Amino acid sequence: MCANRFHYPDFVTVCEVGPRDGLQNERIFVSSEDKIAWINQLSHSGLKYIEITSFVNPKWIPALKDAEVVAKGIERVSGVTYSALVPNLNGLEKAIETNIDEIALFISASETHNRKNLNKSIEDTLPLIEEVAKETISNGKTIRGYISTVFGCPYEGKVAMDKIIRIADTLFEMGIRELSIGDTVGIATPLQVEEVLDALLRRFPAEKVAMHFHDTRGMAIANVLKSLEMGITKFDSSLGGLGGCPYAPGASGNLATDDLLYLLEGMGIKTSVDYDKMIEAAKYIQDKLKKSLSSHTIQALSAGMGK
Amino acid sequence: MCANRFHYPDFVTVCEVGPRDGLQNERIFVSSEDKIAWINQLSHSGLKYIEITSFVNPKWIPALKDAEVVAKGIERVSGVTYSALVPNLNGLEKAIETNIDEIALFISASETHNRKNLNKSIEDTLPLIEEVAKETISNGKTIRGYISTVFGCPYEGKVAMDKIIRIADTLFEMGIRELSIGDTVGIATPLQVEEVLDALLRRFPAEKVAMHFHDTRGMAIANVLKSLEMGITKFDSSLGGLGGCPYAPGASGNLATDDLLYLLEGMGIKTSVDYDKMIEAAKYIQDKLKKSLSSHTIQALSAGMGK
Repeated sequence: MCANRFHYPDFVTVCEVGPRDGLQNERIFVSSEDKIAWINQLSHSGLKYIEITSFVNPKWIPALKDAEVVAKGIERVSGVTYSALVPNLNGLEKAIETNIDEIALFISASETHNRKNLNKSIEDTLPLIEEVAKETISNGKTIRGYISTVFGCPYEGKVAMDKIIRIADTLFEMGIRELSIGDTVGIATPLQVEEVLDALLRRFPAEKVAMHFHDTRGMAIANVLKSLEMGITKFDSSLGGLGGCPYAPGASGNLATDDLLYLLEGMGIKTSVDYDKMIEAAKYIQDKLKKSLSSHTIQALSAGMGK
Repeated sequence: MCANRFHYPDFVTVCEVGPRDGLQNERIFVSSEDKIAWINQLSHSGLKYIEITSFVNPKWIPALKDAEVVAKGIERVSGVTYSALVPNLNGLEKAIETNIDEIALFISASETHNRKNLNKSIEDTLPLIEEVAKETISNGKTIRGYISTVFGCPYEGKVAMDKIIRIADTLFEMGIRELSIGDTVGIATPLQVEEVLDALLRRFPAEKVAMHFHDTRGMAIANVLKSLEMGITKFDSSLGGLGGCPYAPGASGNLATDDLLYLLEGMGIKTSVDYDKMIEAAKYIQDKLKKSLSSHTIQALSAGMGK
């Protein structure tokens, strides 16, 4: 072991995905008005990045069927990047119409998961993404690439590292600004994070890579710690841990922004985010969803523990 | 940064504290018969260390009022150390009568917490512990020392490192076999774990130090990861995360043994424990307590996710 083993970054960027990844599976439809009010709260919390919605077919994700209304209705706070998920040219058109700053493009590292999600092989998905990417750039917008199920998927188990690298290479060739590496089902452990990041960071600078963890097995915060140790400074998270499977009331969903902030504050790592304002925003959406949010922070606060 | 930054131990010892720390706050009284059946299941799961009960005044912890019946009733599986918490000579007498292998002695690093728990100052507690320690050793039993609220307490906030060191020194002078460092309220972050272990491991070998985390803020697994990186190989945990505050149904309690096993297995770190048998044992006690256990593993399994 060497001295000063552990170096943590001074500053971390929190990418709030609650309005999209968090709400998309909720059974209760949050009205456009309430979504807009919530996103406005998030915008004033100090967050610099908010994924506000998804321009997918409302048939697939009815919870976000009001994407255009929301995108048009929210206050655009200076310094905040507003992004939205776009699956195809049709979605892109709406995203451009509503003046989204950044377009999120998705592909899965697992063949089966990609087929289930997009009804296409990875090979057939890439040209489609490229088309959307070209059109995005020619419209003066930036792109965030997401690779999901990087740490394995329920259908295939582990995904080969060279497959992940190949997809990452292709996405960067398409001109993405940043790559988000997703543990979509929340199964990664820190050793896997270390292996994947070891390989990725040989090719791409750390500031181009964000991590997107889910807390299904309670590993999310440990995976963040490992990522911090590897030099990663960008994390996707969802306020209150929103984004759990709708059929699993107690199961954890996305890495909770509030739990992430607790970690970072405790580690002396700065963010742009005001913790108290985020807690207020968490309570707001909790009321609208009429259910207890799953994050440890909200649970502990509800029980009268801690600040 | 240096090459091969991260070294993890090959093997970890899991100290199961569920029957004591897990059950002590439960509102439903688990019958002695069921406790015995559960501990027998745990004994056959490969665990090498089980804290089975507490010989405290039943007035304070009615959930464990049957300590003697349980201690006498369980099967003693060869190779398993059966320990129990003992607050005073009276408790020790019962522990010796029922042939407990190891005695757990507690003290708090926080003056206020210690007073609330033991109605005494730390200064006044140490001689009492010493008395019990002497008597334990003269009866041929070993001792495990616990320091609770090492990472801060709800009353005083942070605890000074030299205070922790002084208590640890005193306990080792009394002849404890091993020291368990407790984050009793579950507030530590990995940076604090690093600081505390940096100080402790300058004085005591890693194999003499165990970590006892609670998951109140979702930091437990990250704190384990940090401890592993610092060379710690012994962790206290409670099956299913049992041990939450009884007034906080959703809040997490002790680090869950099943979540710990998921981490260790994923990190390629061996334990003596059979995961499947532990899940069976978790389901058993879940039925008896008539409530859903809080561990991520049990929640994910209940939701049909993962093995």
